[in-house]
Amino acid sequence: MKRRGFLVILSGPSSAGKNTLLSAIKGRVPGMLYSISVTTRKPRPGERHGVDYFFLDDAEFTRLRDSGGLLEWAEYCGHYYGTPREFVEDSLAAGHIVITDIDIQGARQIRTAMPEAVAVFLMPPSLEELQKRIVARGTDSEAAIKERMKRAVDEMKYVVDYDYWILNTDLDQAVTDLLAIITAERQRVERTEFP
Amino acid sequence: MKRRGFLVILSGPSSAGKNTLLSAIKGRVPGMLYSISVTTRKPRPGERHGVDYFFLDDAEFTRLRDSGGLLEWAEYCGHYYGTPREFVEDSLAAGHIVITDIDIQGARQIRTAMPEAVAVFLMPPSLEELQKRIVARGTDSEAAIKERMKRAVDEMKYVVDYDYWILNTDLDQAVTDLLAIITAERQRVERTEFP
Repeated sequence: MKRRGFLVILSGPSSAGKNTLLSAIKGRVPGMLYSISVTTRKPRPGERHGVDYFFLDDAEFTRLRDSGGLLEWAEYCGHYYGTPREFVEDSLAAGHIVITDIDIQGARQIRTAMPEAVAVFLMPPSLEELQKRIVARGTDSEAAIKERMKRAVDEMKYVVDYDYWILNTDLDQAVTDLLAIITAERQRVERTEFP
Repeated sequence: MKRRGFLVILSGPSSAGKNTLLSAIKGRVPGMLYSISVTTRKPRPGERHGVDYFFLDDAEFTRLRDSGGLLEWAEYCGHYYGTPREFVEDSLAAGHIVITDIDIQGARQIRTAMPEAVAVFLMPPSLEELQKRIVARGTDSEAAIKERMKRAVDEMKYVVDYDYWILNTDLDQAVTDLLAIITAERQRVERTEFP
């Protein structure tokens, strides 16, 4: 039995906890690879180039995007984000599961290009909790916090376009749910070639 | 967020290990109910009426079937098997997950009646291992063993009609896979009503 690789898109409003959840499942799925996004925003404390993001300047980003090197890209709060195409396509072709966290706009672009991708929506426990997280991060101005919150409310309704949703109240439960979704999708008959 | 119930069909060739797997996940999924089949075959040692099966005689079975009381029924090696309709329909309406193990014929009937059911194919590790299990059970004549093996080979090709497949080499792995499939399906956006 030969299994085909697939792309898992973890998306949801900003500060829903996508990065934390991805870090928490690191090493738990044998052979699963992480797609690392490019961004033009500045690194936050502790973030490393090539690990958390590839940090590019505007000119580098534009060059990569305009040469077709991005699977999706989006502008968010004045910065650009994107998913390098080559890594994802090569890894899937080699049979790997690839996971990526991207915002709602980017997720829509990838799903159009790759309708067989598995789309998971991470739902913050409540708007109050979401605001607390954004404020606690301490990197945003009051205006930026307002913009993030307004956008999060708008984005919540896109859950209906996704395959799965996970409520991020308790990290352990969110980890269990995400691992279950990946395990189940690996067992899909349509991804398997039977002799 | 309100979740709708759904039916999980665990199917596969005879002696693939469906009953053992179902027993092994007992109590692991909160609120999941087990559909108990009716059969006209005699109880094997240790099997209890109302727990493993409802054991009926031919007249009782025919009466139930002809009054529309079965969701599916099949004849297998000279005996009748069926799934009582009322229990499944009432439990799903109340929002429960219901699981049932049925043979390939029965699974096809239920999937036609309930296309939204989740169909899982349990694959024996190998034909050699399958034969060993049937022989070890000690309840079948040599002719019956031959018939079961021939049928198992025929049935293996129906895996392509299913949503998921599980290879039953190692019971712990099969349990992990089945629990993951149920957990993932519970997180499907299409089964959830968002406010």
